[in-house]
Amino acid sequence: MNAVFRPGSPYGTHRVLEPQGVMPQGAWKIDNTMSIFDNEILIDVLALNIDAASFTQIKQEAAGDLDRVAKIVQGIVETRGKHHNPVTGSGGMLIGTVAQIGPALSGRTDLKVGDKIATLVSLSLTPLRIDQIVKIHLDKDQIDIQGQAVLFETGLYAKLPADIDEKLALAILDVAGAPAQTARLVQPGQTVVVIGGGGKSGTLCVYEAKKRAGPSGCVIGVSPFEKDCARMRQLGWADHTLQVDARDALGLMEAVAGVTQGRLADVVINCVNIPNTEMGSILATRQHGTIYFFSMATSFTAAALGAEGVGKDVQMIVGNGYATGHADHALGLLRESPALRALFEELYV
Amino acid sequence: MNAVFRPGSPYGTHRVLEPQGVMPQGAWKIDNTMSIFDNEILIDVLALNIDAASFTQIKQEAAGDLDRVAKIVQGIVETRGKHHNPVTGSGGMLIGTVAQIGPALSGRTDLKVGDKIATLVSLSLTPLRIDQIVKIHLDKDQIDIQGQAVLFETGLYAKLPADIDEKLALAILDVAGAPAQTARLVQPGQTVVVIGGGGKSGTLCVYEAKKRAGPSGCVIGVSPFEKDCARMRQLGWADHTLQVDARDALGLMEAVAGVTQGRLADVVINCVNIPNTEMGSILATRQHGTIYFFSMATSFTAAALGAEGVGKDVQMIVGNGYATGHADHALGLLRESPALRALFEELYV
Repeated sequence: MNAVFRPGSPYGTHRVLEPQGVMPQGAWKIDNTMSIFDNEILIDVLALNIDAASFTQIKQEAAGDLDRVAKIVQGIVETRGKHHNPVTGSGGMLIGTVAQIGPALSGRTDLKVGDKIATLVSLSLTPLRIDQIVKIHLDKDQIDIQGQAVLFETGLYAKLPADIDEKLALAILDVAGAPAQTARLVQPGQTVVVIGGGGKSGTLCVYEAKKRAGPSGCVIGVSPFEKDCARMRQLGWADHTLQVDARDALGLMEAVAGVTQGRLADVVINCVNIPNTEMGSILATRQHGTIYFFSMATSFTAAALGAEGVGKDVQMIVGNGYATGHADHALGLLRESPALRALFEELYV
Repeated sequence: MNAVFRPGSPYGTHRVLEPQGVMPQGAWKIDNTMSIFDNEILIDVLALNIDAASFTQIKQEAAGDLDRVAKIVQGIVETRGKHHNPVTGSGGMLIGTVAQIGPALSGRTDLKVGDKIATLVSLSLTPLRIDQIVKIHLDKDQIDIQGQAVLFETGLYAKLPADIDEKLALAILDVAGAPAQTARLVQPGQTVVVIGGGGKSGTLCVYEAKKRAGPSGCVIGVSPFEKDCARMRQLGWADHTLQVDARDALGLMEAVAGVTQGRLADVVINCVNIPNTEMGSILATRQHGTIYFFSMATSFTAAALGAEGVGKDVQMIVGNGYATGHADHALGLLRESPALRALFEELYV
């Protein structure tokens, strides 16, 4: 190929069509022509993993009809140049193989043409073209396609390992930030509450928290569902399992106080994607403790005003889905724990 | 008085009328009868300091008419039992004198009857009764009233000092969390960006950041307004002043890169109450740096997805208006810096 490569912004702003001056994620429409700039990576796409909230909305709009799902998905990408659901605002991720690497990245990337990768940046900012929809997996939020996508210079990705099934790898990479941040946060001997400890990211946080807090620490898993609590007890990583609805702030505080002799938690990790659990998180945390909000349903003002309103001097952190090395860390968990791997194979593949 | 005192919750949940089961701040209506529970403090109110967003909305609704402002304010308190603006969701604070202290607080509070205090918890959760509106200060977001209010056991307050004018004290107590959190956050030698550094809380953050970062550190004040930039230069606490609109994420990043030889900021403190400055904050921060969001206009998802979207491994903290000792710390700033005191007297009293 003898194309002349145009220089691109590391953030992909050169592809923003409207409105001008915003980042690709904030744009209504981006340029999805598949001739790459000098710092981009071209991907032959195999499958889209649609964000759960987005796929639920699409399925509802389509009343579960496969052809209508396909039409909606193609319509979004034709209109916006990316799979950025206009109703939910969310995207997803994709897997594919590297088709071309911009010359400006030469010597600055560990990728080579043919590598199979998963993108770890949202589809809501990824230029995408769908040539054909091959198969829609309604129950797995996944769509096999023929098409191409572009990864920007700052775009995150993970090479898919040979020893882990592709769908299994995707399932854990989707929430890779959670265990990586937990590993940084939790110190030996600490008391850690994981709200939503029976869910996908919550299970990883419970596992990682117990590993970090150690035998002298105490990990408390919280879920409103008996089934999730039973699973946490069976896995055995949580020292206590509390069946409480975290929207009941006082109920959660009392339950946590009950198993900590009133000391409450040093660290609370919130992994439930439902609104109104900020105050429960705050009340379950001791003075000068830390709260990590992974939940995308977190309200910034509810957290900020809530803590002030009850005089809680706690550090509240906005969950960042990216931490250096998070993909390798997450894949490593599947290798080190057969129980975790079996669980993910059973529930999320 | 021979009243029998009923036992109250530390969080005031005993006063929630509707909906049941929520905290006082989340409640539509709370009980504002002025016979206190055993762990409450009764206050004779002198003045309400209405939250700026709330007062702006009320003035607009009243078209600037004083009688209509009074009616709206009284209507809110009659309907909800608290001055919790139903449009903006925000409150404010109040000053008054301690009228009665519940017996369960005996020996557990440093207050005595007659002390003049400012409440540091939001009016959006404070039981309030207005008997008479004495004077409305349209340009100062302040209303002198006759009435009473209740402080819960966990409610924050500050005793008003004898050496600082009451309105001056209120003006700085309103933003006391900002310099206290800055003091914890900033280490000697660090590069600190304060977005909105010419505003009320921003000025305090610039002052405190320079104190902590020291001569080897670098403090950069950002504002889109020439007037604010001129003030920052005149005060002299910022090493650099950048006249940039923080909504222009790339513009802000380039400006910060320009004065830091491309290293960007170790710490970004966001003090502007306008939306869409999350990405600018993220791009101006170096890898592994920290962002402190004081702005109530911060979008949780914009911050979380924004950092992930550009592969920035940064710690993002939800601004907590409360930090242990924050009131004394803020009042101390007025005593230690005549320039700061003069500025606050000129602009905010």
